[in-house]
Amino acid sequence: MSEKIRIGITGYGNLGKGAQSAIKQNDDMELVAVFTRRDPSSLDVGDPNVKVISLDDAEQYKDEIDVMLLCGGSAHDLPEQGPMLARHFNTVDSFDTHAKVNEYFDAIDAPAKEGGNTGIISIGWDPGYFSLNRLYGEATLPEGETYTFWGKGLSQGHSDAVRRVEGVKTGVQYTIPLEDAVNRVRAGENPSLETKEKHFRECYVVPEEGADKDAIEREIKTMPNYFADYETTVNFIDEDEMRKNHSNMPHGGFVIRSGKTGENTNQIMEYSLKLDSNPEFTSSVLVTYARACHRLNKAGDVGAKSMFDVAPGLLSPKSPSQLRKDLL
Amino acid sequence: MSEKIRIGITGYGNLGKGAQSAIKQNDDMELVAVFTRRDPSSLDVGDPNVKVISLDDAEQYKDEIDVMLLCGGSAHDLPEQGPMLARHFNTVDSFDTHAKVNEYFDAIDAPAKEGGNTGIISIGWDPGYFSLNRLYGEATLPEGETYTFWGKGLSQGHSDAVRRVEGVKTGVQYTIPLEDAVNRVRAGENPSLETKEKHFRECYVVPEEGADKDAIEREIKTMPNYFADYETTVNFIDEDEMRKNHSNMPHGGFVIRSGKTGENTNQIMEYSLKLDSNPEFTSSVLVTYARACHRLNKAGDVGAKSMFDVAPGLLSPKSPSQLRKDLL
Repeated sequence: MSEKIRIGITGYGNLGKGAQSAIKQNDDMELVAVFTRRDPSSLDVGDPNVKVISLDDAEQYKDEIDVMLLCGGSAHDLPEQGPMLARHFNTVDSFDTHAKVNEYFDAIDAPAKEGGNTGIISIGWDPGYFSLNRLYGEATLPEGETYTFWGKGLSQGHSDAVRRVEGVKTGVQYTIPLEDAVNRVRAGENPSLETKEKHFRECYVVPEEGADKDAIEREIKTMPNYFADYETTVNFIDEDEMRKNHSNMPHGGFVIRSGKTGENTNQIMEYSLKLDSNPEFTSSVLVTYARACHRLNKAGDVGAKSMFDVAPGLLSPKSPSQLRKDLL
Repeated sequence: MSEKIRIGITGYGNLGKGAQSAIKQNDDMELVAVFTRRDPSSLDVGDPNVKVISLDDAEQYKDEIDVMLLCGGSAHDLPEQGPMLARHFNTVDSFDTHAKVNEYFDAIDAPAKEGGNTGIISIGWDPGYFSLNRLYGEATLPEGETYTFWGKGLSQGHSDAVRRVEGVKTGVQYTIPLEDAVNRVRAGENPSLETKEKHFRECYVVPEEGADKDAIEREIKTMPNYFADYETTVNFIDEDEMRKNHSNMPHGGFVIRSGKTGENTNQIMEYSLKLDSNPEFTSSVLVTYARACHRLNKAGDVGAKSMFDVAPGLLSPKSPSQLRKDLL
């Protein structure tokens, strides 16, 4: 093994912690520093070998870090930090505001090129591996339809909406694919389906003492945008059960491409994920793409990239001939 | 749309015919010629715009073909034709003799580089998309296990073995994953499983008139290497049913990566194919990689490549920014 790839992490929430743990699973990498907007002395990353540095001082560490993993959020952190850091570092991020992805790509591309760096954006599973499978699917079977189902998974936005309902102490919401819709797609029927025809919404709610449960259920089920259009169930539980059964962040789903090649030949390509922890998986994908980012940059391939621009072999620590021998 | 990618096909069996039909589904490509070892005048490709040329004269067409799809078999055709054609053409093939893949890679690499050509080898689904998913799986979840299940699918070699049994008029064999094994893997158990513990074998046999069915069944079930180690069922049917229900070449299977990220977080990545026609799907993948082959060559990236070396975006007719907008 040659020298390890030196990784920095910006942001130490679920994603940053997941990245720290994923780096430990990869012998060819080491975590050098966590960069934070907080007071560095207030942050304990549980490892004396990892420096904790103020994000304001990041630039001073440009020669100590091969790839910076941007573990902030897409709404506020990445649009500000991404372009700033791409000027000084190779970066990998999980930017997921779909409507702004090309705008963000350009915002990374210019400073990355100026700094001679490589910035891979929108890494994770959706955007991420789901996007890849949509691409492989439509490229391979041009005459067909692509379906994305999400879940069973915890939806943060919808859980927040449930928790804002009067009389709700706490609550979570799971998005779950409708089995009948999944089966029709898997059978090659190529139905026309909107998101609400593919999923239902399951809520678990701890009510405040004395709250009107019927009113809570009614308010959730009729909430516009979030629930009104969907088949929705509301289950009332106590705090113990909430803690015991609903404190993780599972997620997953499928991407199905259903196409025809000959007159009557259906071909179904399906990709699915069943994740006990959504943020830990996303972090693992970020870390995998850090290896590719480092290699692309060493090969002089600078500027912004998406997953579509990264050859799969660059993700593995194995050599090309080893990969062919082991996996082809 | 700029000029179409001009495709040649070498070999006109199931794979070559499938490629011809797949090319019609891609507006940016056109089939220019089929090259054959047979007498060209004896071959009808059903399209007056497609030339039929003797393989011996292929070299004369090097300026009329952008990518040559090698649709011959791995046992005899490709080891001979691949290196010869790679000197004059960009090539894409489905070489699938796993034990010789690096040897074959080298045999394509040298003449391709000498001729300034790009040769992509071992394209299809296994080797092919299954290989890719083994790679994405182990790179993303380094602490885990990868499982490949084949089927339900027609196995050519095992069907041939059934047909060689005395008293068998004709027969087919399907390889089918054992549901219990699949479920254990999907549940994250990470069991240790040999091929025979993951699959069973289902045979459909038309006996000769007056043949001893018990003897046929016994001989199949005890046949060394092919069936003796497997759970095997033998069903006797008549020729009508054989023609009606068993004349297609369905196949498919799954690749599952089951890994852990945190202490107790299982993560399951699964890729599956359900194909009505194995050769038509393989051809569709070959055609998709022809586009990538053409682009790699235009970018000066010559020599042998595997699927691992090809960035996914090169497969699609869409531009990078369109891909990000539509699929990311």
